[in-house]
Amino acid sequence: MNWRLVVEYDGTDFEGWQLQPGARTVQGELESAFARLAGRRVVVYGAGRTDAGVHARGQVANARAETRHPPEVLRRALNALLPRDVAVRELEPAGDGFDARRDARSKLYAYRLWTGATRSPLEERWSHWVSVPLDLAALRAAARDLVGTHDFASFRAAGGHGRTSVRTLTRIELAGALGGELRFEFEGTGFLRHMVRNLVGTLLEVGRGRRPPAWAAEVLAARDRRAAGPTAPARGLTLVRVDY
Amino acid sequence: MNWRLVVEYDGTDFEGWQLQPGARTVQGELESAFARLAGRRVVVYGAGRTDAGVHARGQVANARAETRHPPEVLRRALNALLPRDVAVRELEPAGDGFDARRDARSKLYAYRLWTGATRSPLEERWSHWVSVPLDLAALRAAARDLVGTHDFASFRAAGGHGRTSVRTLTRIELAGALGGELRFEFEGTGFLRHMVRNLVGTLLEVGRGRRPPAWAAEVLAARDRRAAGPTAPARGLTLVRVDY
Repeated sequence: MNWRLVVEYDGTDFEGWQLQPGARTVQGELESAFARLAGRRVVVYGAGRTDAGVHARGQVANARAETRHPPEVLRRALNALLPRDVAVRELEPAGDGFDARRDARSKLYAYRLWTGATRSPLEERWSHWVSVPLDLAALRAAARDLVGTHDFASFRAAGGHGRTSVRTLTRIELAGALGGELRFEFEGTGFLRHMVRNLVGTLLEVGRGRRPPAWAAEVLAARDRRAAGPTAPARGLTLVRVDY
Repeated sequence: MNWRLVVEYDGTDFEGWQLQPGARTVQGELESAFARLAGRRVVVYGAGRTDAGVHARGQVANARAETRHPPEVLRRALNALLPRDVAVRELEPAGDGFDARRDARSKLYAYRLWTGATRSPLEERWSHWVSVPLDLAALRAAARDLVGTHDFASFRAAGGHGRTSVRTLTRIELAGALGGELRFEFEGTGFLRHMVRNLVGTLLEVGRGRRPPAWAAEVLAARDRRAAGPTAPARGLTLVRVDY
């Protein structure tokens, strides 16, 4: 049976999604739990390989495993075996050809900022603290220039590779209030490694007034990672949803 | 100078507010930070001695310390010295007679429940997971019987002592939706040790249908800890605000 999973995790204490020898990873924990129930190695394929420290509310994965259990029993058994910071929210049989990574049509990421005058112990696990006032109108204007189908090479992780760095961002939104929580949403058909964090780092240069709103389009046009702002911290990023 | 502080903390990794030899406590961390800036022992008095694992968004405290720094500089210096899970949100000079504990007129506590079908890694740090359906109308009816001035001896920690266990609860409210986050608010002039957690544990017996709504009033009338429900876990509890 090829299972479709929806997985939630607190990324703080994981070295990311992807299996690595000797590292605590989400894929590794899921595969261990499956292996104990199936009695053999099970490979779990994720829709997106989130980096160390990145959270997920709705990561999607698929895994082939034969069990005698109905889906709800299997799901509960997995959750009983999994550590506290990861859980399987949904589990259902998928067509044999279903591939969580290849078949994903769209992903939604959220990036949270805490904009209070003081760092917040109750927010810091999920937020990047920005203590200076931000120009929200400038932030939104810069974000508008990034929506669409573009070559996002400037926002790719240094050393990132792949056939193409052209991606489509269908939506960037910013909600919340200065002095409290601000939340970016990035929706698109695909994302390069570090792309959301580099977009946020670049937009924050504009929001802080260090660069004009038109700078974001200049960074995009440069197609060079060195043109963009710094990579925003992983803690603020959550993979919210994957659509098929 | 007698300072008035508003303190926020993630209680997960603290053995509570109160200073204890060899234990990591919020009072201990605050006193260490003050001592480094003042060059001598400084005692920090909290409005409420929250238990191990209980969080605070607006704990109030007072501390006598002489420094040459203006309040905002002192506040930032304290936050630079404090660990990540505690911060001073506000710091201002108070009258010499101000006593955060004795002068408190009212406190607001929140207790969060996560009521999803699956435990939630992103909620569990601040919430108690209740996976069965709850009868919200029954919960609210039971809560109404607890508001007012009563002898809350049934809801005091076993072994708790003190001159009187009479307290006034001015408000209990329940917000949120089944299947997601539910949030109780308890406002009152004073609280006994474990009182909110014992109230929640008792109300949940009603919400789960194990007891009728009228049972809460019976527990109250019994004035006996053995009559009440179990103590709900500390992780769901947050001291939101102290009023003077």
